[in-house]
Amino acid sequence: MKFGGTSVADLEKIRNVAAHVRREVEAGHQVSVVVSAMAGKTNELVGWCEEACEDYDAAEYDAVVASGELVTAGLLAMTLQGMGIKARSWAGWQAPVKTDGAHGRARIMDIPPENLAAFLDDGGVNVIAGFQGIGPDGRVTTLGRGGSDTSAVAVAAALGARCDIYTDVDGVYTTDPRIDSRARRLEKITYEEMLELASLGAKVLQTRSVELAMTWKVPLRVRSSFDAPDAPSQVTEDGKGPGTLVCEEDEIVEQQVVSGIAYSRDEAQVAIRKVKDKPGVSASIFGPLAGAGISVDMIVQNVSADGEFANLTFTVPRGDLKKALKALEAEKDNIGFEEIASSSSVAKVSVVGIGMRSHAGVAAKMFQVLSEKGINIEAITTSEIKVSVLIDEAYTELAIRALHSAYGLDAE
Amino acid sequence: MKFGGTSVADLEKIRNVAAHVRREVEAGHQVSVVVSAMAGKTNELVGWCEEACEDYDAAEYDAVVASGELVTAGLLAMTLQGMGIKARSWAGWQAPVKTDGAHGRARIMDIPPENLAAFLDDGGVNVIAGFQGIGPDGRVTTLGRGGSDTSAVAVAAALGARCDIYTDVDGVYTTDPRIDSRARRLEKITYEEMLELASLGAKVLQTRSVELAMTWKVPLRVRSSFDAPDAPSQVTEDGKGPGTLVCEEDEIVEQQVVSGIAYSRDEAQVAIRKVKDKPGVSASIFGPLAGAGISVDMIVQNVSADGEFANLTFTVPRGDLKKALKALEAEKDNIGFEEIASSSSVAKVSVVGIGMRSHAGVAAKMFQVLSEKGINIEAITTSEIKVSVLIDEAYTELAIRALHSAYGLDAE
Repeated sequence: MKFGGTSVADLEKIRNVAAHVRREVEAGHQVSVVVSAMAGKTNELVGWCEEACEDYDAAEYDAVVASGELVTAGLLAMTLQGMGIKARSWAGWQAPVKTDGAHGRARIMDIPPENLAAFLDDGGVNVIAGFQGIGPDGRVTTLGRGGSDTSAVAVAAALGARCDIYTDVDGVYTTDPRIDSRARRLEKITYEEMLELASLGAKVLQTRSVELAMTWKVPLRVRSSFDAPDAPSQVTEDGKGPGTLVCEEDEIVEQQVVSGIAYSRDEAQVAIRKVKDKPGVSASIFGPLAGAGISVDMIVQNVSADGEFANLTFTVPRGDLKKALKALEAEKDNIGFEEIASSSSVAKVSVVGIGMRSHAGVAAKMFQVLSEKGINIEAITTSEIKVSVLIDEAYTELAIRALHSAYGLDAE
Repeated sequence: MKFGGTSVADLEKIRNVAAHVRREVEAGHQVSVVVSAMAGKTNELVGWCEEACEDYDAAEYDAVVASGELVTAGLLAMTLQGMGIKARSWAGWQAPVKTDGAHGRARIMDIPPENLAAFLDDGGVNVIAGFQGIGPDGRVTTLGRGGSDTSAVAVAAALGARCDIYTDVDGVYTTDPRIDSRARRLEKITYEEMLELASLGAKVLQTRSVELAMTWKVPLRVRSSFDAPDAPSQVTEDGKGPGTLVCEEDEIVEQQVVSGIAYSRDEAQVAIRKVKDKPGVSASIFGPLAGAGISVDMIVQNVSADGEFANLTFTVPRGDLKKALKALEAEKDNIGFEEIASSSSVAKVSVVGIGMRSHAGVAAKMFQVLSEKGINIEAITTSEIKVSVLIDEAYTELAIRALHSAYGLDAE
């Protein structure tokens, strides 16, 4: 069971978490819990680090920032004890969660399960500080933002357990319910689809934790920590239950062709006009951008009729637009273009579904639907299980609602 | 160098601490620093523990409460790095500060110096989280309130170093300057005197840290963290310097007979009237008090002329008075007394000086001075190096000022 920062934000919320844990214990389960720091605490600690030193040492940053989870782990263990449940807290270094030495963004290498398993077999509940581990040199490491999800999946893998992620939404939806009120909660979704949704801006789960769950085949359930905690254990025998189960494809009997519609407004489009179309020109453009740490997406290249010039458009994260333009202007002579234009009023809308692999026509339908609504498509990218289009940001909601209906996702 | 909670209360104060450290580094010293949590943080964490569980597990309490020092240790290390000084933080378990397993009030057993010494020899500054260690079972322990002083003395002993305690006062005074403006800062004071002063209510140093310094012969300097930090290293070659040096008797050339006047208002007097004077009656009175965890001081027994009854008075900490009276009333039949009276309007005033060992007449002079001022003495206790009297609380300031003058302690 993993609980995020909003679920452990104060003592009352921690008591609510403890009641969720008690329900699972009383249902006869062995339980290990992974907790984040209280909401806001990590930001406070990060702020202090930035104030202490502009170019701070990531090892010291980790030492400071990892303290937040120690507090909530200890408080939850105490609260459980107060309910008569045997429990103890584990810092990352105690469990131990062994990581590499990449401070601030460490990767979990191994969680030897002996300590945690022994306490479970002794009838206890493990409460593990998320987001942290211990590096090869015995120093504290952190896993990067959202790392508590990753901790939870790794602990579940080490113990051969399932992993229930408790969060502030009650599952994964066919699209953002704030945009389309007919959005439905998905009973199940594949790891692959969840990965696409996570990378497309759905904030329910960290990409890395889903990758890990997929690799180690850990069944992942996303559910709400605001469910009534003292109801009976809510996952029924046929595997149906609250939230959304992220699992392998063959566990999903009635697979939809399209599972969800995602969108991202974190996009900006750059158009480079009249580039000399010669070998190496792409490298001269994308090399400097990569060098500046900017990831580029949705590249479209049009060559002029005489084949001499090309127009090139692509997208970058909206926050990186200025940096991208600066990097390109600096290379203007080298690249040899006439002008650069850019726009931040674009959005990416995607349809995701593992069923696309075996069903043709998903993309064609998407273009048809958008065309009927008079929405112009500025760029397209596809993967095996998704189609993304770049459109004018003003049409985002219209596009999502039209596609949600067209693929039969609307709630009845 | 040890810095308490008020000295590291925010980033600006931490930068001030770093400037003190830089001064010592630039003077060519190898430096290890022990820090407390930011002022108020430990109380916040303790409050959460109390809210989480009434009868909390001391091991979890330690896991939670020890997190505060991790934050300041990391932030100070970063700040030093930002000044170009090589530094790293150490949690108690990393140093390691090995303690017994008495959670919440652990005792330091050993600090193997290899890790800390290696980093010093490498040109680095150690920044050690105070107040904490690691128990025999690998769990985090804390040393109890004021434990950072103890951590600092223990680290100094392990490294064969002196120990400078930076605090919010600029040294040890002949008496409380708020009561007598003629109070002088002492250049030096012996461990024994400092122990008496600490146990008599002077809040400058924790008793245990002084005991430890005495046992391990660690020279201890108490000085202010609000001194200008970037002045040249302020301890001169003849050992004179800012603050007060706590040291062995033979290091003090011109020893005063009396070094200071201490006082405590944390006193209450209990009088038990007409106790049957028979064998075992003292045990019947003080046994129940000891059982209730109440420490008793300043016992006076008067036997009536016929030898049949005794009147017995003694003092207890003011906060324990109600509990003491309750414990005695419960044993009334067993003890066999006529009545109990009590008073909270008493104060203890003490003269302390290691010179008393070889100079007679210190106590006589004290009684003489108080008598001249019309101050009645209700009880007396003495040790080899102190005389304490219990008086009406209203006369506290008068008594202190009179004694301060009489023993030649007034500043010129």
